[in-house]
This record gives sequence, C-alpha cells and structure tokens, in this order.
Amino acid sequence: MEGSRLTEAVKRDIGAAVGGSCSTALEDRICYSFDATDIRGLPDIVVWAESRDQVVAVMKIASQARLPVVPRGAGTGYTGGSIPICGGIALSFEKMTCIVDVNVEARVAVVEPGVVNDDLRSTVERLGLMYPPDPASLKVSTIGGNVAEGAAGPRTVLYGTTRDYVVGLELVMMDGSIVRTGYLAGDSDVAWDPGPLIVGSEGTLSVVTSVALRLTDAPEVTRTYWAEFGSLDGAAAAVAMITADGMPVSVLEIMDGDTLACATEYVRGRAPDTRSEGALLIEVEGAADDIAGMWGRLQPLLEKCGATGCRAASDENERDEIWEIRRSISASLARLGTGKINEDIAVPRSRIPVFIAEMRRISAEVDLPILAFGHAGDGNLHVNIMLDRANQLHMVRARQAVSALFSAALELGGTLSGEHGIGITKAEHLAEELDEAALGVTAAVKRALDPSALLNPDKILSSRPNPWWDGLKAPSVGA
Amino acid sequence: MEGSRLTEAVKRDIGAAVGGSCSTALEDRICYSFDATDIRGLPDIVVWAESRDQVVAVMKIASQARLPVVPRGAGTGYTGGSIPICGGIALSFEKMTCIVDVNVEARVAVVEPGVVNDDLRSTVERLGLMYPPDPASLKVSTIGGNVAEGAAGPRTVLYGTTRDYVVGLELVMMDGSIVRTGYLAGDSDVAWDPGPLIVGSEGTLSVVTSVALRLTDAPEVTRTYWAEFGSLDGAAAAVAMITADGMPVSVLEIMDGDTLACATEYVRGRAPDTRSEGALLIEVEGAADDIAGMWGRLQPLLEKCGATGCRAASDENERDEIWEIRRSISASLARLGTGKINEDIAVPRSRIPVFIAEMRRISAEVDLPILAFGHAGDGNLHVNIMLDRANQLHMVRARQAVSALFSAALELGGTLSGEHGIGITKAEHLAEELDEAALGVTAAVKRALDPSALLNPDKILSSRPNPWWDGLKAPSVGA
Repeated sequence: MEGSRLTEAVKRDIGAAVGGSCSTALEDRICYSFDATDIRGLPDIVVWAESRDQVVAVMKIASQARLPVVPRGAGTGYTGGSIPICGGIALSFEKMTCIVDVNVEARVAVVEPGVVNDDLRSTVERLGLMYPPDPASLKVSTIGGNVAEGAAGPRTVLYGTTRDYVVGLELVMMDGSIVRTGYLAGDSDVAWDPGPLIVGSEGTLSVVTSVALRLTDAPEVTRTYWAEFGSLDGAAAAVAMITADGMPVSVLEIMDGDTLACATEYVRGRAPDTRSEGALLIEVEGAADDIAGMWGRLQPLLEKCGATGCRAASDENERDEIWEIRRSISASLARLGTGKINEDIAVPRSRIPVFIAEMRRISAEVDLPILAFGHAGDGNLHVNIMLDRANQLHMVRARQAVSALFSAALELGGTLSGEHGIGITKAEHLAEELDEAALGVTAAVKRALDPSALLNPDKILSSRPNPWWDGLKAPSVGA
Repeated sequence: MEGSRLTEAVKRDIGAAVGGSCSTALEDRICYSFDATDIRGLPDIVVWAESRDQVVAVMKIASQARLPVVPRGAGTGYTGGSIPICGGIALSFEKMTCIVDVNVEARVAVVEPGVVNDDLRSTVERLGLMYPPDPASLKVSTIGGNVAEGAAGPRTVLYGTTRDYVVGLELVMMDGSIVRTGYLAGDSDVAWDPGPLIVGSEGTLSVVTSVALRLTDAPEVTRTYWAEFGSLDGAAAAVAMITADGMPVSVLEIMDGDTLACATEYVRGRAPDTRSEGALLIEVEGAADDIAGMWGRLQPLLEKCGATGCRAASDENERDEIWEIRRSISASLARLGTGKINEDIAVPRSRIPVFIAEMRRISAEVDLPILAFGHAGDGNLHVNIMLDRANQLHMVRARQAVSALFSAALELGGTLSGEHGIGITKAEHLAEELDEAALGVTAAVKRALDPSALLNPDKILSSRPNPWWDGLKAPSVGA
C-alpha cells in the first residue's frame, strides 16, 4: 500500500507534538531510508520520539492523516523491517535510551526501546545478573529492535531468544491507545495477553514504548573451546554428537572454511592464524563442579569427528582471541568486496549436515560462493551468497539460490528465518512455510490490531516482490 | 448471545460426522450442563469427539448451522468456562486421551486434550521426567482444560503455570481450519504465533486438538516442611520472609485456621490432629547438596514469625500425611454443608498480609465466614465465602463480599483470577482490571479469530450478569 503524503499542516502538528524533535531534510530522511539489505525507502519525515506520550501524539496524528508509521531501532536488520518502503514517518527510538529500573529481587529490568543491548548487558552484569540474548549486533542494536525481530544469538542454544525474556510490554497501538501487558500491567493474567504476539512482529502490530525483561543469574564458570576440522561435514557431525550428549553447552557456533579464512585474515595478529575446512566455537557453563570434567568429555568426542586443532582457552585472553574470530565474520565478509546476500535459515540440528551438503550443491549449480556460519546449537545458519550486486547474471543466480536454500530448509523441517524476521525480503516466500489457515490467522490478527494498515505497512504479509530482484529477467532454470 | 437451535438435519449431520458418538438425550445433556459453579446451561447436543478430523467436521457443521460450540475437559472449572450457557454443542474430549509421544531427548510430550493431568505426570515420571503444573484437580482435570484456563498449582511458585509449558498446539478454528503452532509446526517461528493467546483463553478463540508440553528433569531431592502459627498474619509474614530469602521453594501453601480445622477434622486418623490459626506447607527441591542445609535455614526464619509446630517430614509417609491435609481442603469444605463461593484472586506476595486483613474486615462486614488457603508462594489465594445458597440474604451479602474482595485485590496490584479464569462468573468484573484499550485489543482478537462469535459465546467478554445473583435485590450498602 501507499499511504497519504505528508502535508504542511500535518508536519506542523508532528513538530508541535514532539517539541521539534523531527526533520524533513533530505539528508535526514536518507539516513533513515535503509538497513543492512541495500533496499531503500525514503520516509517523508523522521521523528526522534523522546517519550511514550510523544509516541501517542504522533500515532494519533498519523492515524488521522493516514500516514504510515515505521518504528526503527538501530536499523541493523537483514530483511528490511525498519525501511519506510511506503514512506510516512520513520519513528526513531534513539532518544528513548533510559534503563528505567532493574529490580534485582524480581530479576526484571524495565527499559525504553532505544536502549542498546550491550548497555543493558553491562548494567545488569555489574549487579551480578545477566541478560542472555546476544545478537551479533549487540553493540549497536536496540532492545526495541531485538523485540521487533525476536533476536537470537550464540547463547540461544542454552538460553532461548528474546521471546523467552520479554515479560511485559507497554504498547502504543496505531490509534494511539496504550496497552500494558504482563509485568507492566502488574502481571495481570486475565483473558489473553497480546504481548507474545508482539515479539517478532517487526513493528507491524503496535509500537513498543517500554519493555520488561527477565534477567538470569550470571553463570559461576564459563569455559571456551575451539576445534578445527578437515571438513565442514566433520564439524556438523560434531554438532549433532554434542547435542545428543546433553552437556550444558551455552554456545555452539559453526564456521565453514571460506568464512574462517576470511575472518582469520581480517584479525591477523589479534588471533592465532588458522586454516581448516570447518571450525566450532564451543562454550559450556554452570557450577564449577559440573564444568570441571567437561573438556575431558568434549575432546574425545570432537576427535572422534575428525577434529584436529582442539584447544581449551586457558584464560580470558585466549577466550577473547577465539571470540575475535567469530565476531569479525560479518565485517570480514563485507571487506571481501562487492556484496553478499545474507539469509538466516534454521533447520533441526540433526539435519545441519544434510543442509550443508545441499547448500554446496546449490552453490555449484549457481556458480556463486556460498559461505555458512552461525548458531549450530539451535540449527540457525547464516548463509551468505557472495556476489556483485551490479552484475545481472549474479543477481539472477542469487535469486535462484535463495529460493533453493529456502526450499531446502523447509524440506528439512526448518524455517525461513531463525532470527532476522520476514520483513520485505522474505515476504514473497512466507506462503511456502505457513499454510493457508496459518496465513489466515496471521492476517486476521494484523487486521484486528492495525485495522487501518498504517503500521509498518507492506512487511511480512505483503504481495510486494523483493526489490532485490527488481528489473531482473526471470531466472532461467539451470542457469 | 443465543445461537440457533439444533435442527433434526444438523443433528443427523453431526451424528454422521462423529460416527454416532453424540447424544441429545436429556440425561446426557444435563451431565454436560454444569461445572463447579452451580450455574447451569443445557447444551442441545453432547459430542464426544474421537479425533481431530471429527472436531473439524463438527466445527464446519456448527459454523454452517450457526450453533455455538463449547469445548469441555473434565468440567471442574470454578468460573463456568465449560458451561453451554447459550446452548449448542457441548464438545467433550473425554475420548481423546492418547499420550501421542514423549520425546525424552527434546523433553516434550505431545498429548490429546482429554489426557488427565495425573496420567501425563505418572507416564513421564517413569521416564525420569516431570510435568510440573499441578492444579488441585490433577486427578480428574484434563490437559485441554488446564490449557484453556492456564491452570496453576502449588508448584507454580518455582515452576510457573501451564502457560510456561505449552510449546505447541494444534488448533481447530471455528471455521474448521487447522492451525499448528510451535513444536507442532516444526518450531516455525516466522511472523506471530497465535499459540500464547490460546492458553488461558477458555476455549473462546479456538478448539485445541493436540498439545505439545515441555517437560523438566525430576528434582534430585524434595523436602517437605510444616509450620503452624498463632495467627494467620504470622503465616503471611513468614511467606514474605521466605520469598525474600530466595531459597529454592517449590511449594509454599497457606491455610487459615478455619480451613485447617475443617481439613484436619476431615482427615482425622490419616494425619496428625492439629489446631492453629494458620499453617504453611513448604517444599524445597534441588540437588542433594543444595538442599542439605535448608531446614537449618528455614526453621529459625519460621520461628521468628511466631511458628510453633514446625516439623520436617522425615520420610515419604510423613510427607503424605502433610499433603493429605492440603489436598483434603476442597472436599472438607464441601462437606461443611450448605455451600460456598470459591474465588481465586492473586496479589503480590508481599501484600498477602494486607489482603488477609482486608478479607477479615469484609467477612465481618457481611457477617459470613470467609476461609482462605492457597498458593501463597505466587500470591494466589483461594477465598471461600461460606453460605447457604438458598438464603437470599446470604447471597446478597456474598455478592457484596465478592465485589469487595476483587476491589481489594486490584487495589493491591493484584488480579481477579490467579488460575480459574474469568468465564461467566467474573465477566462482570473484567472492566475493573483491564482498561478500555486492553479490553479493545481483547475484543479485537476475539473478533479476528472467531468472527462468527460461536465459540464458547458469552464467556470472558460478556455483558451477561453472573447468574449467581439472578433474582437478587440490589445489595444494600453496609447490609
């Protein structure tokens, strides 16, 4: 859909409602027109909300003027969720960065949506507590964005995703009404709570203005291990064995050989040089007694799967070196040059070896490198198709590869999206995962909570094709 | 609302759809017309569904004929959720009692909705696993009913409620479409999952035909303690101190003096005779090492609050004796005679002493005994107004007491319902807890998922007054 355009009168109303904390300057609008997808959508106006009441006022004006509202955290998304593809208001939460309360006894933090994940983490760490969800973007991405996308991370294997930590929300609906849920509604538990619908709804059902998050105790001991393999299949087999063993794994990250080469090149000097066809980064955590014998249990299992370079980090320094490799992957791939298409899929953990074989087949078929790394512990793989976006043939083949990768994931009982959401880029594939009845319920809920269809329009449920493929010829089979 | 009546043709269609597993005999209809509330609503037909496909067929016929459908587990509810107050189809799940799968590795059980809670418990116990939600009705109530009401129990303080264990559902919507969520949809996590809306929705949004439930490891050690107090306030103070202490309490049940007298009289010979003004039943659980010193930590704390008869169960036999008292409460109160009105409210744990003082004031004001017991650990109290239902004055005063108790709970930041739901009896009070915006979202979700309003109509969101008060004069203030 296309919303109305911004009139001068509406612009004045918005300016008055937010005390001038807004802009229609082209340079500002451009800054809020994109995320990590290379898709662009220019908002008519950028609003930096400073309070819940300002959000309410803006929503009422937008409803009246039939202007789309697109909430936005740090804009680090991989599926276009925060892009104002229909214009309207880019509603930024950069100024709502208050950690309102940390209730140590109840183990709950209440934060504004603009709080950066890592700021919350370090604040609660000082109180001996932990906020587990740790997306790779944690140094920039916001809690509001994490809630919108249902963000996961390396620790998800043990701790679950953002979904498992949201215990209360303050929502502003498109008509400006305020709904509080869970902890923020005094843990009221009558009738049904819309809260769980909101996590992962990508800002399409309501705007979040406050989040109550469950915290956990920090683990007594964490141990970090590294293992390299002669083949990615070996690493994938080790994932399956570790999972079946039931040890208290809190991180289980996999990297293929190309990813590893790229990342180690990038961190040269800051981490040991390493070359292999696959690697695992493993952490276990728990009480000191429980963790003591873990390496003795893990190492033989890794070696049985063909691991060569196994090591346990002996101190914090060695731990940082190991993590440095993992954390540099995205930046290192970006430096490779021309471009990449990053898709996150998830498959049952036991099917990772099968998926990886299928991925290699697809890579060969389309003649484009496909690099894989990610959260093997919960079956969530980040699959990167390396290409030159200006090259039509590359793009035609990439489109073919994306479709084939999604089909493979679904075929194996997996999902289109482990944590990046559907947004714009995966909307055209949603019907491959959800059947007609589930899509019907999804659409009914959208109509119920956003009847005017102004809230982050044309996301998730959209017939708009992925703009990546705009102007491409239809892919020829077997191209 | 009143739905259409059952025609001969529709009756034939239903009979054909369920292979004759239905009845319009008055004696059968009467058996499915009530629950624990003393409210009656006669269905037009009782259907004992034997499979998901039969449910689908019945829903399609009912939609077409505009006949209400009221799903029903064991009918043990305290708010009228399963009563066919508008007639239509009483859809019983008594024949869908299959434990379809227990996946020990994934710690997930998949069951049909008619499985009795205790049957699931004992089945998974044999595999070293535990299904924690333990409503007092567990020997009769079904998983489907537990899901509909969001049932809790003594163990909720440590383990949470049914809501925390449902990881997947198979739903049949009013139009007969089938929607699978979570584990039963291959853990698909794209867009929004209607699953969490369904738990606690009292069969008003969809019918549940399969439930995937998370299981936990059985605790290594459980210890049971009993403490008596010279006053209920002392017991309530101990609850607050135990909670603040942070020990791994898995059960924290409170009983007032009248409840205790009644229950001990009932179990005479099967448990030690005991007379006091308040008692606590406490359990702690965990690893043997962690639990070893627990009594030494608990006992001084109890004594500081004025506990007199403190004891730790030394064996399984003594444990059973202690539980016998708690489990006999409902039956013993029923034997007291004429009648009771049982309301479950919840308040923040620290406010239990204040609520109990307020309850005593209300009891004196209306001149009716009010007995209290319940899950103090999560602030959920079962408040029983003892009365003769045939006595108009009693009923007028009870109505006044119920309103005052709800107001007191809400005033203290509590809720109308800890676990019994809203159903018919609390619907008239819902607007005291949810504000207009929250009610708006609640109603919008109902319209979205049951647009024909045939699914368990006139529950939760209903302008129908509580039938308990039918024919009563308006209560006089200060009666």
